[in-house]
Parts: sequence; structure tokens; C-alpha cells
Amino acid sequence: MVITDCIFCKIVSEEISSYKVYEDSKFLAFLDINPVNNGHTLVIPKKHYENFLDLPREFMGDYMSICQKICDAIIKGLNADGFNILNSSKRAAGQLVDHVHMHIIPRFKNDGLKHWPQHTYKDKEAVEVAVKIKSFL
Amino acid sequence: MVITDCIFCKIVSEEISSYKVYEDSKFLAFLDINPVNNGHTLVIPKKHYENFLDLPREFMGDYMSICQKICDAIIKGLNADGFNILNSSKRAAGQLVDHVHMHIIPRFKNDGLKHWPQHTYKDKEAVEVAVKIKSFL
Repeated sequence: MVITDCIFCKIVSEEISSYKVYEDSKFLAFLDINPVNNGHTLVIPKKHYENFLDLPREFMGDYMSICQKICDAIIKGLNADGFNILNSSKRAAGQLVDHVHMHIIPRFKNDGLKHWPQHTYKDKEAVEVAVKIKSFL
Repeated sequence: MVITDCIFCKIVSEEISSYKVYEDSKFLAFLDINPVNNGHTLVIPKKHYENFLDLPREFMGDYMSICQKICDAIIKGLNADGFNILNSSKRAAGQLVDHVHMHIIPRFKNDGLKHWPQHTYKDKEAVEVAVKIKSFL
């Protein structure tokens, strides 16, 4: 299925050009044109799925295996010191294009990227939160 | 394999307690005790693999499928508006525990978490970067 107003579907169909890193019959990887660090790559299924929740089970293994290959190539090709894999699902999480994509972000020692601030749970808050999540598993 | 000084191996063996969210024979999910947002969950294989590059291909499908179930439960159980899935591999990427883990971070509208700054490529920089990555794929 091609969603006609989806920029990533247009990249798949080559209606919009991209800097391709990897392509096979089911997946495409290309450079994020606004990288966090140079080499920041987006990996997408060619078929349009809106977000991570919509991916069929049978896609998962191949999708992550390809991401792994790209992480390895980023370490080797760019002499990166590490990488982050990031998926943002839904607007509140920062998803801007509604075609599921994994960000692979090369990381370098002292690249200055700061992680999000963390806090601690109060009293029995952690137990209550775990129970709420478990009730849907 | 159990690495004796690995805090996550100790959580698996219950030598260290945790707020468990999900468990099966191969995987465990538990609350990050220093959450970015309440419900921030870590999903790990019980077997010790250092980082994402070390995961065997045959683990990938089940691992991501379990992450997907937990994302769904976080949306439903916590009325989250979205989520991020994040893996940090190697120190430069922010990995603090050398037992591969996926962060699942519930997101809420206006939770104030800022994404990392992005830039644009200069001239032919993007082509050169893509070539370097592709040379290892």
C-alpha cells in the first residue's frame, strides 16, 4: 500500500530522492537529511505502517536484523564509538512522519548529546505503575 | 551465561529485586528505577549479550515482538500518548550497563522532553557519508 501524501512512501517510489544506504525488496535505509550526527540513518519497511505498534510480527526479525547490519556498518564506516537506535511512535513521542522508522544515530565520544533527565519513584508509585502495565500483558 | 558482576544478570537471577512487568523463559521486562517518565521499562534477554551488535539473529523477532506488546500495554495501562524505544550501545552512546537493553519510554503530550538538535549536511558531505556506510553493507 502506498499512501500518496507520505514522504517516506515517496522516497521508496523514488518520487523524492534520498541518500540510500541499504535497500532490499522489503526495507530501505537512507540518511536523515537533518542528522543529529553525520550518518544518522532511517530504516523503514517499504510497505506503509504508521508506527511500531502496527508492524506485523513476521516483519520484526528481518527489520531488526537489517538495523543491526546498519549499526555495524556505521561503527566501521564512520569510526563511530557507539550508536543509538530510536523509534518514536505518535506525535507526543516526536514522530513527525507517520511511516514507521527506526533512527540509527552514530555516537562519538564527547559529542555533547545529553540524555533525558531521570527521576526516582515516590513510595509505592513504582508498584502501582508496574501493576497498571502488567494488567494489559 | 551469567556474568557475575552484571547488575541485570543479578536482576534475572533475583539476587537483586526489580519491579517486573513481563517475564518468559528468554526475556524479562522491569521498570527502570530512574525513569525518564513513570513506566519507563527496560526489556532484556535473560542471557547476557553485551550490546545490540551481539544479539543473535534468531533472537530479534521475539525480542522486538515482546517490546511491541509492552509498548501497547504502556499506552493502554498508563494512558500514554506515545512512546520511544531506545537502545544505547557502547559507552559513547550512553550505555551504562553492558547487558543489552531496550528502553521503552512512555510519552505524554507536553512532557517537555526535547529531542537532540539536528543540523544539515554541507555540499557533498551526505554523499560521502552514505558511501562510507554502504562500503560495509
